[in-house]
Amino acid sequence: MNLLNNPAFVAYALTCVALSCNLIFLWAYSGAARSRVKSTPNPEDASRFSSNFADIEPPEIARVLRAHANAQASIVPFLALGLVYVLAGGPYGAAALYFTIFTVARWLHSWAYLGARQPLRTIFFVVAVLPLLALMGHVVWLLLAAR
Amino acid sequence: MNLLNNPAFVAYALTCVALSCNLIFLWAYSGAARSRVKSTPNPEDASRFSSNFADIEPPEIARVLRAHANAQASIVPFLALGLVYVLAGGPYGAAALYFTIFTVARWLHSWAYLGARQPLRTIFFVVAVLPLLALMGHVVWLLLAAR
Amino acid sequence: MNLLNNPAFVAYALTCVALSCNLIFLWAYSGAARSRVKSTPNPEDASRFSSNFADIEPPEIARVLRAHANAQASIVPFLALGLVYVLAGGPYGAAALYFTIFTVARWLHSWAYLGARQPLRTIFFVVAVLPLLALMGHVVWLLLAAR
Repeated sequence: MNLLNNPAFVAYALTCVALSCNLIFLWAYSGAARSRVKSTPNPEDASRFSSNFADIEPPEIARVLRAHANAQASIVPFLALGLVYVLAGGPYGAAALYFTIFTVARWLHSWAYLGARQPLRTIFFVVAVLPLLALMGHVVWLLLAAR
Repeated sequence: MNLLNNPAFVAYALTCVALSCNLIFLWAYSGAARSRVKSTPNPEDASRFSSNFADIEPPEIARVLRAHANAQASIVPFLALGLVYVLAGGPYGAAALYFTIFTVARWLHSWAYLGARQPLRTIFFVVAVLPLLALMGHVVWLLLAAR
Repeated sequence: MNLLNNPAFVAYALTCVALSCNLIFLWAYSGAARSRVKSTPNPEDASRFSSNFADIEPPEIARVLRAHANAQASIVPFLALGLVYVLAGGPYGAAALYFTIFTVARWLHSWAYLGARQPLRTIFFVVAVLPLLALMGHVVWLLLAAR
Protein backbone atom coordinates (compact mmCIF):
# COMPACT_ATOMS: atom_id res chain seq x y z
CA MET A 1 0.00 0.00 0.00
CA ASN A 2 1.14 3.47 -0.79
CA LEU A 3 -0.86 6.59 -0.01
CA LEU A 4 1.48 9.00 -1.81
CA ASN A 5 -1.04 9.45 -4.64
CA ASN A 6 -3.49 10.91 -2.08
CA PRO A 7 -2.71 14.65 -1.82
CA ALA A 8 -4.31 14.91 1.64
CA PHE A 9 -1.92 12.22 2.88
CA VAL A 10 1.07 14.05 1.37
CA ALA A 11 -0.08 17.21 3.18
CA TYR A 12 -0.35 15.19 6.40
CA ALA A 13 3.13 13.69 5.92
CA LEU A 14 4.68 17.14 5.45
CA THR A 15 2.76 18.44 8.48
CA CYS A 16 3.94 15.49 10.56
CA VAL A 17 7.55 16.25 9.64
CA ALA A 18 7.17 19.99 10.38
CA LEU A 19 5.46 19.39 13.75
CA SER A 20 7.92 16.65 14.75
CA CYS A 21 10.69 19.15 13.98
CA ASN A 22 8.93 21.64 16.25
CA LEU A 23 8.78 19.11 19.12
CA ILE A 24 12.36 17.91 18.62
CA PHE A 25 13.63 21.50 18.33
CA LEU A 26 12.04 22.49 21.66
CA TRP A 27 13.35 19.33 23.29
CA ALA A 28 16.90 19.95 22.01
CA TYR A 29 16.55 23.59 23.03
CA SER A 30 15.93 22.57 26.65
CA GLY A 31 19.23 20.67 26.51
CA ALA A 32 20.98 23.72 25.06
CA ALA A 33 19.46 25.89 27.80
CA ARG A 34 20.83 23.48 30.42
CA SER A 35 24.32 23.78 28.93
CA ARG A 36 24.12 27.57 28.85
CA VAL A 37 22.74 27.97 32.37
CA LYS A 38 24.98 25.12 33.60
CA SER A 39 22.23 23.47 35.62
CA THR A 40 21.10 19.85 35.73
CA PRO A 41 18.44 17.97 37.69
CA ASN A 42 20.66 14.82 37.69
CA PRO A 43 23.39 14.57 40.37
CA GLU A 44 25.38 12.18 38.12
CA ASP A 45 25.68 14.92 35.46
CA ALA A 46 26.91 17.66 37.77
CA SER A 47 30.59 16.70 37.80
CA ARG A 48 30.61 15.29 34.26
CA PHE A 49 29.35 18.46 32.57
CA SER A 50 30.65 20.85 35.29
CA SER A 51 27.05 21.89 35.87
CA ASN A 52 25.35 22.76 39.12
CA PHE A 53 22.83 20.30 40.46
CA ALA A 54 19.44 21.99 41.01
CA ASP A 55 16.33 20.27 42.33
CA ILE A 56 14.11 22.98 40.89
CA GLU A 57 14.71 24.02 37.29
CA PRO A 58 16.05 27.57 36.79
CA PRO A 59 13.56 29.93 35.06
CA GLU A 60 15.34 29.83 31.66
CA ILE A 61 15.00 26.04 31.51
CA ALA A 62 11.51 25.90 33.02
CA ARG A 63 10.34 28.24 30.24
CA VAL A 64 11.60 25.90 27.52
CA LEU A 65 9.99 22.92 29.26
CA ARG A 66 6.66 24.79 29.43
CA ALA A 67 6.89 25.68 25.73
CA HIS A 68 7.58 21.99 24.98
CA ALA A 69 4.69 20.80 27.17
CA ASN A 70 2.38 23.29 25.46
CA ALA A 71 3.52 22.06 22.03
CA GLN A 72 2.95 18.40 22.98
CA ALA A 73 -0.48 19.15 24.44
CA SER A 74 -1.75 20.50 21.13
CA ILE A 75 0.36 18.66 18.54
CA VAL A 76 -0.41 15.15 19.80
CA PRO A 77 -4.21 15.40 19.37
CA PHE A 78 -3.72 17.29 16.10
CA LEU A 79 -1.55 14.54 14.57
CA ALA A 80 -3.96 11.81 15.74
CA LEU A 81 -7.02 13.61 14.38
CA GLY A 82 -5.21 14.61 11.19
CA LEU A 83 -4.43 11.01 10.30
CA VAL A 84 -8.02 9.95 11.03
CA TYR A 85 -9.18 12.77 8.75
CA VAL A 86 -6.93 11.56 5.91
CA LEU A 87 -7.85 7.87 6.35
CA ALA A 88 -11.54 8.85 6.41
CA GLY A 89 -11.11 10.38 2.97
CA GLY A 90 -11.25 14.02 4.04
CA PRO A 91 -10.81 16.46 1.13
CA TYR A 92 -7.40 17.94 0.32
CA GLY A 93 -8.43 21.62 0.30
CA ALA A 94 -9.59 21.77 3.91
CA ALA A 95 -6.64 19.57 5.00
CA ALA A 96 -4.15 21.99 3.44
CA LEU A 97 -5.87 24.89 5.18
CA TYR A 98 -6.01 23.32 8.66
CA PHE A 99 -2.53 21.80 8.47
CA THR A 100 -0.82 24.97 7.22
CA ILE A 101 -2.43 27.36 9.70
CA PHE A 102 -1.81 25.02 12.64
CA THR A 103 1.83 24.30 11.76
CA VAL A 104 2.75 27.95 11.15
CA ALA A 105 0.94 29.13 14.27
CA ARG A 106 2.59 26.45 16.46
CA TRP A 107 6.09 27.37 15.25
CA LEU A 108 5.35 31.04 15.85
CA HIS A 109 3.94 30.17 19.29
CA SER A 110 7.21 28.42 20.20
CA TRP A 111 9.17 31.45 19.01
CA ALA A 112 6.95 33.81 21.02
CA TYR A 113 7.08 31.59 24.13
CA LEU A 114 10.88 31.25 24.14
CA GLY A 115 11.26 35.01 23.70
CA ALA A 116 8.57 35.93 26.28
CA ARG A 117 6.73 37.88 23.57
CA GLN A 118 3.24 38.90 24.65
CA PRO A 119 0.53 39.36 23.36
CA LEU A 120 2.00 37.46 20.37
CA ARG A 121 2.19 34.20 22.33
CA THR A 122 -1.52 34.30 23.19
CA ILE A 123 -2.45 35.34 19.64
CA PHE A 124 -0.55 32.44 18.03
CA PHE A 125 -1.98 30.09 20.64
CA VAL A 126 -5.54 31.04 19.68
CA VAL A 127 -4.72 30.90 15.95
CA ALA A 128 -3.48 27.30 16.41
CA VAL A 129 -6.50 26.23 18.46
CA LEU A 130 -8.94 27.20 15.69
CA PRO A 131 -7.73 24.67 13.06
CA LEU A 132 -7.48 22.02 15.81
CA LEU A 133 -11.17 22.49 16.64
CA ALA A 134 -12.09 22.76 12.94
CA LEU A 135 -10.26 19.50 12.21
CA MET A 136 -12.10 17.76 15.03
CA GLY A 137 -15.45 19.10 13.81
CA HIS A 138 -14.65 18.02 10.24
CA VAL A 139 -13.83 14.46 11.39
CA VAL A 140 -17.20 14.28 13.19
CA TRP A 141 -18.90 15.59 10.03
CA LEU A 142 -17.17 12.97 7.85
CA LEU A 143 -18.36 10.26 10.23
CA LEU A 144 -21.93 11.55 10.23
CA ALA A 145 -22.02 12.09 6.44
CA ALA A 146 -20.96 8.47 5.83
CA ARG A 147 -23.92 7.00 7.71
CA MET B 1 -8.62 5.53 0.13
CA ASN B 2 -11.45 5.72 2.58
CA LEU B 3 -11.74 3.49 5.63
CA LEU B 4 -15.23 4.68 6.60
CA ASN B 5 -16.76 1.37 5.45
CA ASN B 6 -14.63 -0.40 8.10
CA PRO B 7 -16.65 -0.30 11.35
CA ALA B 8 -13.54 -0.78 13.51
CA PHE B 9 -12.05 2.35 11.92
CA VAL B 10 -15.24 4.31 12.58
CA ALA B 11 -15.05 3.21 16.23
CA TYR B 12 -11.42 4.32 16.32
CA ALA B 13 -12.26 7.70 14.76
CA LEU B 14 -14.97 8.35 17.37
CA THR B 15 -12.60 7.25 20.15
CA CYS B 16 -9.89 9.55 18.81
CA VAL B 17 -12.31 12.49 18.90
CA ALA B 18 -13.51 11.65 22.43
CA LEU B 19 -9.98 11.19 23.80
CA SER B 20 -8.68 14.32 22.05
CA CYS B 21 -11.55 16.19 23.68
CA ASN B 22 -10.45 14.78 27.03
CA LEU B 23 -6.86 15.99 26.49
CA ILE B 24 -7.93 19.40 25.18
CA PHE B 25 -10.45 19.82 28.00
CA LEU B 26 -7.81 19.17 30.69
CA TRP B 27 -5.38 21.49 28.93
CA ALA B 28 -7.98 24.28 28.71
CA TYR B 29 -8.96 23.59 32.32
CA SER B 30 -5.38 24.30 33.46
CA GLY B 31 -5.69 27.70 31.78
CA ALA B 32 -9.03 28.30 33.49
CA ALA B 33 -7.48 27.30 36.84
CA ARG B 34 -4.69 29.84 36.26
CA SER B 35 -7.27 32.60 35.66
CA ARG B 36 -9.23 31.68 38.76
CA VAL B 37 -6.19 31.38 41.05
CA LYS B 38 -4.57 34.39 39.34
CA SER B 39 -1.16 32.75 39.11
CA THR B 40 1.20 32.43 36.16
CA PRO B 41 4.65 30.90 35.68
CA ASN B 42 5.48 33.57 33.03
CA PRO B 43 6.70 36.97 34.26
CA GLU B 44 5.47 38.61 31.02
CA ASP B 45 1.88 37.54 31.84
CA ALA B 46 1.83 38.88 35.39
CA SER B 47 1.03 42.50 34.56
CA ARG B 48 -1.00 41.71 31.43
CA PHE B 49 -3.48 39.40 33.15
CA SER B 50 -3.07 40.99 36.64
CA SER B 51 -1.87 37.62 37.88
CA ASN B 52 0.82 36.85 40.42
CA PHE B 53 4.02 35.38 39.13
CA ALA B 54 4.81 32.07 40.86
CA ASP B 55 7.83 29.91 40.20
CA ILE B 56 6.10 26.86 41.70
CA GLU B 57 2.57 26.13 40.56
CA PRO B 58 -0.14 26.57 43.24
CA PRO B 59 -1.81 23.25 44.28
CA GLU B 60 -5.02 23.91 42.30
CA ILE B 61 -3.08 24.26 39.05
CA ALA B 62 -0.58 21.49 39.80
CA ARG B 63 -3.53 19.11 40.24
CA VAL B 64 -4.88 19.90 36.77
CA LEU B 65 -1.41 19.50 35.26
CA ARG B 66 -1.04 16.09 36.95
CA ALA B 67 -4.44 15.00 35.64
CA HIS B 68 -3.38 16.13 32.15
CA ALA B 69 -0.03 14.32 32.40
CA ASN B 70 -1.80 11.16 33.55
CA ALA B 71 -4.24 11.42 30.63
CA GLN B 72 -1.40 11.87 28.11
CA ALA B 73 0.58 8.98 29.58
CA SER B 74 -2.24 6.51 28.89
CA ILE B 75 -4.06 8.05 25.90
CA VAL B 76 -0.98 8.39 23.67
CA PRO B 77 -0.07 4.66 23.69
CA PHE B 78 -3.76 3.74 23.45
CA LEU B 79 -4.30 5.82 20.30
CA ALA B 80 -1.11 4.47 18.69
CA LEU B 81 -1.99 0.85 19.48
CA GLY B 82 -5.66 1.37 18.53
CA LEU B 83 -4.74 2.50 15.02
CA VAL B 84 -2.33 -0.41 14.59
CA TYR B 85 -5.15 -2.74 15.70
CA VAL B 86 -7.53 -1.28 13.09
CA LEU B 87 -4.95 -1.31 10.27
CA ALA B 88 -4.07 -4.91 11.16
CA GLY B 89 -7.69 -5.85 10.50
CA GLY B 90 -8.68 -6.35 14.15
CA PRO B 91 -12.37 -7.29 14.56
CA TYR B 92 -15.00 -4.65 15.33
CA GLY B 93 -16.55 -6.31 18.40
CA ALA B 94 -13.42 -6.30 20.53
CA ALA B 95 -12.50 -2.81 19.27
CA ALA B 96 -15.86 -1.42 20.38
CA LEU B 97 -15.40 -3.02 23.80
CA TYR B 98 -11.83 -1.80 24.41
CA PHE B 99 -12.45 1.68 22.99
CA THR B 100 -15.67 2.29 24.92
CA ILE B 101 -14.42 1.09 28.31
CA PHE B 102 -11.15 3.01 27.97
CA THR B 103 -12.77 6.27 26.84
CA VAL B 104 -15.47 6.27 29.53
CA ALA B 105 -13.00 5.30 32.27
CA ARG B 106 -10.51 8.01 31.22
CA TRP B 107 -13.17 10.73 31.26
CA LEU B 108 -14.34 9.53 34.68
CA HIS B 109 -10.72 9.43 35.87
CA SER B 110 -10.28 13.10 34.87
CA TRP B 111 -13.48 13.98 36.73
CA ALA B 112 -12.34 12.07 39.83
CA TYR B 113 -8.83 13.57 39.69
CA LEU B 114 -10.01 17.18 39.36
CA GLY B 115 -12.42 16.68 42.26
CA ALA B 116 -9.94 14.77 44.46
CA ARG B 117 -12.40 11.87 44.63
CA GLN B 118 -10.84 8.75 46.12
CA PRO B 119 -11.11 5.75 45.81
CA LEU B 120 -12.96 6.56 42.56
CA ARG B 121 -9.83 7.95 40.92
CA THR B 122 -7.88 4.75 41.52
CA ILE B 123 -10.84 2.60 40.44
CA PHE B 124 -11.27 4.43 37.11
CA PHE B 125 -7.51 4.35 36.61
CA VAL B 126 -7.48 0.54 36.91
CA VAL B 127 -10.59 0.20 34.73
CA ALA B 128 -8.80 2.18 31.99
CA VAL B 129 -5.56 0.19 32.24
CA LEU B 130 -7.34 -3.12 31.56
CA PRO B 131 -8.50 -2.31 27.97
CA LEU B 132 -5.08 -0.74 27.28
CA LEU B 133 -3.36 -4.02 28.18
CA ALA B 134 -6.03 -6.06 26.37
CA LEU B 135 -5.56 -3.96 23.22
CA MET B 136 -1.81 -4.48 23.35
CA GLY B 137 -2.24 -8.23 23.83
CA HIS B 138 -4.73 -8.37 20.97
CA VAL B 139 -2.30 -6.57 18.61
CA VAL B 140 0.40 -9.12 19.48
CA TRP B 141 -2.11 -11.93 18.87
CA LEU B 142 -3.07 -10.49 15.46
CA LEU B 143 0.61 -10.37 14.51
CA LEU B 144 1.22 -13.96 15.63
CA ALA B 145 -1.96 -15.29 14.00
CA ALA B 146 -0.91 -13.80 10.63
CA ARG B 147 2.36 -15.68 10.50
CA MET C 1 -8.29 -3.46 4.89
CA ASN C 2 -5.46 -5.39 6.42
CA LEU C 3 -1.83 -4.32 6.26
CA LEU C 4 -0.43 -7.50 7.82
CA ASN C 5 0.94 -8.65 4.45
CA ASN C 6 3.15 -5.51 4.41
CA PRO C 7 6.34 -6.42 6.33
CA ALA C 8 7.13 -2.74 7.06
CA PHE C 9 3.75 -2.44 8.78
CA VAL C 10 4.39 -5.59 10.83
CA ALA C 11 7.73 -4.10 11.91
CA TYR C 12 5.91 -0.89 12.85
CA ALA C 13 3.26 -2.80 14.82
CA LEU C 14 5.91 -4.65 16.83
CA THR C 15 7.78 -1.37 17.42
CA CYS C 16 4.58 0.31 18.55
CA VAL C 17 3.99 -2.47 21.09
CA ALA C 18 7.59 -2.36 22.36
CA LEU C 19 7.63 1.45 22.69
CA SER C 20 4.18 1.53 24.31
CA CYS C 21 5.50 -1.02 26.81
CA ASN C 22 8.44 1.30 27.46
CA LEU C 23 6.10 4.26 28.14
CA ILE C 24 3.71 2.21 30.28
CA PHE C 25 6.59 0.64 32.21
CA LEU C 26 8.06 4.05 33.12
CA TRP C 27 4.62 5.34 34.05
CA ALA C 28 3.94 2.32 36.29
CA TYR C 29 7.44 2.64 37.71
CA SER C 30 6.68 6.18 38.90
CA GLY C 31 3.72 4.73 40.81
CA ALA C 32 5.95 2.03 42.30
CA ALA C 33 8.51 4.68 43.29
CA ARG C 34 5.73 6.62 45.04
CA SER C 35 4.77 3.53 47.04
CA ARG C 36 8.36 2.81 48.02
CA VAL C 37 9.20 6.41 48.99
CA LYS C 38 5.73 6.82 50.53
CA SER C 39 5.18 10.25 49.01
CA THR C 40 2.21 11.60 47.09
CA PRO C 41 1.37 14.97 45.52
CA ASN C 42 -2.35 14.42 46.26
CA PRO C 43 -3.60 15.27 49.78
CA GLU C 44 -6.53 12.83 49.36
CA ASP C 45 -4.04 9.94 48.96
CA ALA C 46 -1.96 10.71 52.04
CA SER C 47 -4.20 9.02 54.61
CA ARG C 48 -5.49 6.33 52.24
CA PHE C 49 -2.07 4.98 51.31
CA SER C 50 -0.33 6.13 54.55
CA SER C 51 1.94 8.27 52.39
CA ASN C 52 3.34 11.70 53.12
CA PHE C 53 1.95 14.58 51.15
CA ALA C 54 4.73 16.47 49.34
CA ASP C 55 4.23 19.50 47.13
CA ILE C 56 7.58 18.93 45.45
CA GLU C 57 8.38 15.41 44.27
CA PRO C 58 11.22 13.63 46.13
CA PRO C 59 14.32 13.03 43.96
CA GLU C 60 13.63 9.29 43.45
CA ILE C 61 10.21 10.05 41.93
CA ALA C 62 11.33 13.14 40.02
CA ARG C 63 13.97 10.98 38.29
CA VAL C 64 11.35 8.51 37.05
CA LEU C 65 9.14 11.36 35.85
CA ARG C 66 12.07 12.87 33.92
CA ALA C 67 12.86 9.50 32.34
CA HIS C 68 9.18 9.22 31.33
CA ALA C 69 9.09 12.76 29.93
CA ASN C 70 12.26 12.07 27.95
CA ALA C 71 10.75 8.86 26.58
CA GLN C 72 7.53 10.63 25.54
CA ALA C 73 9.45 13.49 23.91
CA SER C 74 11.19 11.12 21.50
CA ILE C 75 8.75 8.21 21.16
CA VAL C 76 5.74 10.34 20.18
CA PRO C 77 7.36 11.90 17.06
CA PHE C 78 8.97 8.55 16.22
CA LEU C 79 5.65 6.68 16.23
CA ALA C 80 3.96 9.43 14.17
CA LEU C 81 6.77 9.53 11.58
CA GLY C 82 7.07 5.74 11.53
CA LEU C 83 3.44 5.28 10.54
CA VAL C 84 3.74 7.96 7.84
CA TYR C 85 6.82 6.12 6.54
CA VAL C 86 4.91 2.82 6.35
CA LEU C 87 1.81 4.36 4.74
CA ALA C 88 4.06 6.14 2.22
CA GLY C 89 5.34 2.74 1.11
CA GLY C 90 8.78 3.02 2.71
CA PRO C 91 10.92 -0.12 2.20
CA TYR C 92 11.08 -2.83 4.86
CA GLY C 93 14.88 -3.02 5.19
CA ALA C 94 15.41 0.56 6.33
CA ALA C 95 12.30 0.36 8.54
CA ALA C 96 13.64 -2.69 10.36
CA LEU C 97 16.96 -0.90 10.88
CA TYR C 98 15.50 2.38 12.20
CA PHE C 99 12.84 0.71 14.32
CA THR C 100 15.17 -1.83 15.95
CA ILE C 101 17.96 0.61 16.80
CA PHE C 102 15.52 3.19 18.17
CA THR C 103 13.55 0.72 20.29
CA VAL C 104 16.61 -0.97 21.80
CA ALA C 105 18.35 2.36 22.47
CA ARG C 106 15.23 3.84 24.13
CA TRP C 107 14.81 0.84 26.45
CA LEU C 108 18.51 1.03 27.35
CA HIS C 109 18.17 4.79 27.87
CA SER C 110 15.35 4.20 30.38
CA TRP C 111 17.48 1.61 32.19
CA ALA C 112 20.47 3.99 32.29
CA TYR C 113 18.33 6.94 33.43
CA LEU C 114 16.64 5.05 36.27
CA GLY C 115 20.01 3.78 37.50
CA ALA C 116 21.82 7.14 37.09
CA ARG C 117 24.32 5.45 34.78
CA GLN C 118 26.53 7.96 32.97
CA PRO C 119 27.95 8.19 30.30
CA LEU C 120 25.67 5.30 29.20
CA ARG C 121 22.55 7.45 29.44
CA THR C 122 23.97 10.07 27.08
CA ILE C 123 25.31 7.39 24.71
CA PHE C 124 21.94 5.62 24.40
CA PHE C 125 20.25 8.99 24.02
CA VAL C 126 22.42 9.84 21.01
CA VAL C 127 22.03 6.34 19.54
CA ALA C 128 18.23 6.78 19.67
CA VAL C 129 18.29 10.26 18.12
CA LEU C 130 20.11 9.03 15.01
CA PRO C 131 17.34 6.69 13.70
CA LEU C 132 14.75 9.36 14.61
CA LEU C 133 16.52 11.86 12.34
CA ALA C 134 17.15 9.20 9.66
CA LEU C 135 13.45 8.27 9.69
CA MET C 136 12.47 11.92 9.27
CA GLY C 137 14.92 12.39 6.42
CA HIS C 138 13.67 9.19 4.74
CA VAL C 139 10.05 10.41 4.93
CA VAL C 140 11.06 13.68 3.24
CA TRP C 141 12.95 11.68 0.59
CA LEU C 142 9.91 9.45 -0.08
CA LEU C 143 7.78 12.58 -0.54
CA LEU C 144 10.29 14.17 -2.92
CA ALA C 145 10.86 10.95 -4.90
CA ALA C 146 7.12 10.59 -5.52
CA ARG C 147 6.80 13.97 -7.23
